[in-house]
Amino acid sequence: MTMQLAKGVRDVEPSQMIIKNKVLTIMRDVFELYGFLPLETPIIERYETLAAKGGAEEDSDCLKETFKFQDQGKRNLALRFELTTSLARYLSCNPNTKLPFKRYEMGEVFRDGPIKLGRYRELWQCDIDTVGTNSMLADAEIATMANAFFTQANLDVYFKINNRKLLDGILEQAGIKETKEAIISIDKLDKIFEKGVREELLTRGYTQKQCDGIFELIRDGISLSELKEKITSEKGKEGISELEELFTYLKAQGITNYKFDVSLARGQAYYTGTVMEAYLKNPAEKEPKGSLAGGGRYDDMVGKFIGGGRNVPAVGISFGLEPIMDVLTNRDEGTLKSTTKILVIPINTISDCLAITEQLRRQGIPSEIAMGKKGISKNLEYAASLNIPFVAIVGEDELKAKKIKLRNMISGSEELLTVAELIKELK
Amino acid sequence: MTMQLAKGVRDVEPSQMIIKNKVLTIMRDVFELYGFLPLETPIIERYETLAAKGGAEEDSDCLKETFKFQDQGKRNLALRFELTTSLARYLSCNPNTKLPFKRYEMGEVFRDGPIKLGRYRELWQCDIDTVGTNSMLADAEIATMANAFFTQANLDVYFKINNRKLLDGILEQAGIKETKEAIISIDKLDKIFEKGVREELLTRGYTQKQCDGIFELIRDGISLSELKEKITSEKGKEGISELEELFTYLKAQGITNYKFDVSLARGQAYYTGTVMEAYLKNPAEKEPKGSLAGGGRYDDMVGKFIGGGRNVPAVGISFGLEPIMDVLTNRDEGTLKSTTKILVIPINTISDCLAITEQLRRQGIPSEIAMGKKGISKNLEYAASLNIPFVAIVGEDELKAKKIKLRNMISGSEELLTVAELIKELK
Repeated sequence: MTMQLAKGVRDVEPSQMIIKNKVLTIMRDVFELYGFLPLETPIIERYETLAAKGGAEEDSDCLKETFKFQDQGKRNLALRFELTTSLARYLSCNPNTKLPFKRYEMGEVFRDGPIKLGRYRELWQCDIDTVGTNSMLADAEIATMANAFFTQANLDVYFKINNRKLLDGILEQAGIKETKEAIISIDKLDKIFEKGVREELLTRGYTQKQCDGIFELIRDGISLSELKEKITSEKGKEGISELEELFTYLKAQGITNYKFDVSLARGQAYYTGTVMEAYLKNPAEKEPKGSLAGGGRYDDMVGKFIGGGRNVPAVGISFGLEPIMDVLTNRDEGTLKSTTKILVIPINTISDCLAITEQLRRQGIPSEIAMGKKGISKNLEYAASLNIPFVAIVGEDELKAKKIKLRNMISGSEELLTVAELIKELK
Repeated sequence: MTMQLAKGVRDVEPSQMIIKNKVLTIMRDVFELYGFLPLETPIIERYETLAAKGGAEEDSDCLKETFKFQDQGKRNLALRFELTTSLARYLSCNPNTKLPFKRYEMGEVFRDGPIKLGRYRELWQCDIDTVGTNSMLADAEIATMANAFFTQANLDVYFKINNRKLLDGILEQAGIKETKEAIISIDKLDKIFEKGVREELLTRGYTQKQCDGIFELIRDGISLSELKEKITSEKGKEGISELEELFTYLKAQGITNYKFDVSLARGQAYYTGTVMEAYLKNPAEKEPKGSLAGGGRYDDMVGKFIGGGRNVPAVGISFGLEPIMDVLTNRDEGTLKSTTKILVIPINTISDCLAITEQLRRQGIPSEIAMGKKGISKNLEYAASLNIPFVAIVGEDELKAKKIKLRNMISGSEELLTVAELIKELK
């Protein structure tokens, strides 16, 4: 009874961790290639920080689902539910941070919410954000970097890109001033289609005419140039010009796997400009159809959070580690049970085998030595259970001849080799 | 007020994170070179698991200092305070795990305790353990691997090694049967010296004669061979023979930077055989004098935890990431503020600069492009603040001549180069 996992959390098994470490390493390398700095904020934050205005106010579900507790000094604490609030808190604590501040953070976030398939209470987020510039170069860099990550990870993706100012402009033209609620409905277009969104908008009190106005422009496949002709509001025009600038920059970097999608809204109310999402181009049956990464520009949130009337524009993207892992695990076919390349089995030759194994490791070859008094067959079983591709059997006769017997665990073939030959073979 | 960090936690700044990521990468690479598998257990465990017998019973301070809370379903949860309990829980949940199970785990642990200098409420632990074999090969491997990590990290260390069976044997010979309390006192020898330990032992009710018996053998610099002559108890003899076997294996792998230290006890009651600690050989004034890693054999704990009378021997070591970081940060002299190698500053040449910057990145050169409409001097300031070593200034004249102006930020010298020459220079 006591030996169970807590509800909604899980162990990441070695075979999955090998993949996860690869993904995180690629991310780190790519992020730093683009000059982003690593940051680590604590998992425990003051409850007041997470509940502060500008952070979670729009997103009351987050606060409802926040794990809260007290320390022995009765201070109110909480486990973070996202990394953006912590970024804003960090900038508030470090007001002299040089801007633009380009940082990435990867770590656990927590939600005390209902459990669904693939939805956990403790999950990893990988966030990259550029804070302190409103240049579209920053938006382009975020998309380019995300694309570089997916390329490195062998994931063929495309980006959907839109702009909240354009959406606001469209809604304004349709006679809607307070656009937040309408955008939350439009965000569901993928799931409940135009019919569902119209129903929701009518229920929220919008008119049939407003709905018609919205869907005249928010239309599948409508191009940026068509919209450019039809948009009259200043805000809408600004959104279009931002998108044009962004696309120019993407093209200059050779990025073409994106499409403009006027229906892309993204739920959170805090986005103010660019919004983007990355999708797998041809997901296999078992692979996620939803986005693998998503983000955008949020020019008001950090400033509101920090206070003092500071204007702190920002743009970022968040990678969904779980769906990315799902794809890669699906494609890996479960072969990665260990990174070990060879198991050395001593037969009354322990000290010599220790020296040989250590020699292999110094050549960068991941190696294990068999432990305990188990026979050869038990050790072969161990190697097979971890998909270790080679086994070296070292008896006294082999040692006298300065050889080891190398067994290929896949083909079953065996050959006698010197240690130098073995190293050459395994490298 | 709300924008502060919670008490006892902290942000790991980019300059420190760059070092931390290096350390964690070296660890991961070394651990996998020795065939250890990565595992990730959740930060949230059931409170009952952490409070379970065999885990924390001996270490009541841990439970007192555990952050406890409930989810919305009123389940009792807690933040883990170490990784070993989670390892035992994992093995209990996965009874078919192939043994020996060689795993490493790196992650945050939490303690709701008093704050001292360098002692945090949220800290990283890096643990490696081999579960399921009582072979001294496992103990030797743990020490060899730890040594390989320190070598890779350029930290010149030595190991103190002892054996709890030997300590128990010595105490038995001194007429002490229940050795736990005496060992906790002996563990303080470094801090309160023989005089202090004697006083504590007398207060605990041991006799003067027992103290004399203890300190006749637990003597600074006493050799294993001298002890071998003087030890009569079976348990003590077993400890000596384990140490001899361990030392043979270490020597076979070329490890000589260790010394036998009969006074090394390590506090926790759960150790049953080998105990070891790694220390910096010549710590500079600001560097930690305490151990950088410590561990040993604990043959009873996992079995007790799992229950069902299973005998599950185990040996492991835990790295102190904080003291290791302290040494490396001290030695780094604060130069690592960014991993970026070059900042490209466009002067009305944004699209070309984007293409150039992206070309550099494809060659693996970490590169940034200046954003916003700031002048050259502001951008040079930004590069200087992050210790970025090179800046490329790209104006229209340079572009026409197919050149860029490369400025060395350390020497201040400038030269005109083609992109191909630039790549060659930076690689």
